[in-house]
Amino acid sequence: MNGMVGERRVIEIISSHIGKRCYDDVELVHVNGLEVALKCDMLVESTDVPRGMEPWQIARKSIVASISDMASKGVRPSYALISLALPKGIDEDYVRGMAGGFRKAAREFNIKIVGGDTNEGKELIIDCCMLGIVEEGSRFVRRSGASSGDLILVSGPFGYTKAGLKILLEDAKASSWFRARALRSVLMPKPRLRFGLMLARYATSAMDSSDGLAYTLHEMSRASGKRFIIEHKPIGRGVERFARDNSLSIDDLVFYAGEEYEIVSTVRREHLEDVIRIARSTGCQMMVIGIVQDGNGVYIRDEHGERELERYGWEHLALT
Amino acid sequence: MNGMVGERRVIEIISSHIGKRCYDDVELVHVNGLEVALKCDMLVESTDVPRGMEPWQIARKSIVASISDMASKGVRPSYALISLALPKGIDEDYVRGMAGGFRKAAREFNIKIVGGDTNEGKELIIDCCMLGIVEEGSRFVRRSGASSGDLILVSGPFGYTKAGLKILLEDAKASSWFRARALRSVLMPKPRLRFGLMLARYATSAMDSSDGLAYTLHEMSRASGKRFIIEHKPIGRGVERFARDNSLSIDDLVFYAGEEYEIVSTVRREHLEDVIRIARSTGCQMMVIGIVQDGNGVYIRDEHGERELERYGWEHLALT
Repeated sequence: MNGMVGERRVIEIISSHIGKRCYDDVELVHVNGLEVALKCDMLVESTDVPRGMEPWQIARKSIVASISDMASKGVRPSYALISLALPKGIDEDYVRGMAGGFRKAAREFNIKIVGGDTNEGKELIIDCCMLGIVEEGSRFVRRSGASSGDLILVSGPFGYTKAGLKILLEDAKASSWFRARALRSVLMPKPRLRFGLMLARYATSAMDSSDGLAYTLHEMSRASGKRFIIEHKPIGRGVERFARDNSLSIDDLVFYAGEEYEIVSTVRREHLEDVIRIARSTGCQMMVIGIVQDGNGVYIRDEHGERELERYGWEHLALT
Repeated sequence: MNGMVGERRVIEIISSHIGKRCYDDVELVHVNGLEVALKCDMLVESTDVPRGMEPWQIARKSIVASISDMASKGVRPSYALISLALPKGIDEDYVRGMAGGFRKAAREFNIKIVGGDTNEGKELIIDCCMLGIVEEGSRFVRRSGASSGDLILVSGPFGYTKAGLKILLEDAKASSWFRARALRSVLMPKPRLRFGLMLARYATSAMDSSDGLAYTLHEMSRASGKRFIIEHKPIGRGVERFARDNSLSIDDLVFYAGEEYEIVSTVRREHLEDVIRIARSTGCQMMVIGIVQDGNGVYIRDEHGERELERYGWEHLALT
């Protein structure tokens, strides 16, 4: 273990060397007076691709991750570059499948894939680099910015992605409806692009949930220097029963999964009606899950009182 | 072998799916009236990193590749994102070394590394995505654009990189001076950023030589629909002796190596004096190597007459 580092320590070391001080999900740079948003997200076969995923779904997912981050910041994505590492001996059908997934994603999210780089490596790697524009009349929504009294909301229900992985990889028990819903959340995730772009006008802070809901809430709470109180867990339909049938914890499915690609946001109470209207018009099952207060930390409040929501989330290179 | 594909076929398949028709070393997109250049380049440990390369040199080289492409197009690079895949168990000293290399490269080329993505994978992968601006008074130099009568030039001598790899990996014989020069070309490549930016005003076409000089000349000849005649081989000092001492072909070292990060360009004859001045002021050993004519293909002309320069170059996933 001597000297080994986890993902967060790697980020600390590199950030301190390159003089990076401010963290957000998307980088904002100024180019001749224009605000340009940049994002890269790497998909790695051995850690990000569950068994049973088709090549086109893998390619599509590699783009979804950046779309979701752009959406949470209120930035319309425009262009993408794709860097590939492919294992030697990969066959043409597989490449055609992936190419179809890139095309599908480009159409679905109205972006243009303008180029990339192709390499040989030990496993499939897809790095998607995306450029977006903060549109006129919109604004770049940061992780920070929540005020006391703001409502905390999520763009949809939680619990499906971890359930989907349990079904795919461990053959967990599920009704056929739930099975389909949970698998779709893993294989065909839907980032909330239209919702995010319209929400930006009202969001005081926002972030996408791809590292897990608990981690996301803690990051936002810390960035704003506020206490987040969660009063309603955004439990997806069927998740309680799935948890019971498979002896799993509901909190684990809802708060400690990741890759839901939902937007977590805070808004001022007086904008709730506007935000409900936006959710309806974009087909999101938005839920208000809590409230922002003075203080620190993230707490669950229920009939038993308040307890802290443990802060952990997905970490690559974890030293466990 | 059934159905297996090489790198160029992968690029064809994906390009046809995403509707990409025009190829160049850097992508040019239009963002609210601004011309923005984008480039990504992935470094893969198992194919791009020779034994004996330090972590800071690996990190620096991952940035050099994109700098060189930007330079050849006359684009000043501004911002970079870095996506990493790191093997589990990587130690802190290694990460610190890499971080130092990123910092060094950022200072050397006056770019800002604004963010990135950290992942776990089976081997070290560094994908650098870069954004640059075509400056006022400059222009984006394409692979195409050479006219009959133009001179063909290179920004420096060739033959060192393949020699360096032979020394590093196969313990090839070399004088201590040559050894140092050749190893520097592999471990500390110098992209021609200042030269490229100043050359853009005069270049009728240009490309960087990173896939090998023969491949580069063929790409440029084809893109312009012209015949390239090479009259002087840009053989680096000491390369002939190194070839003789190790029973290697000079042409192989000069034309079929790659990763020299030199700029290959065409200019009108009347601009030669200007270009010589630029080379002097930027410390480049520029050489005029040939001339553009009507026709097709790339030919070597010497005392024995003309012969075609075979067209091959580095290809990942090669089916040999």
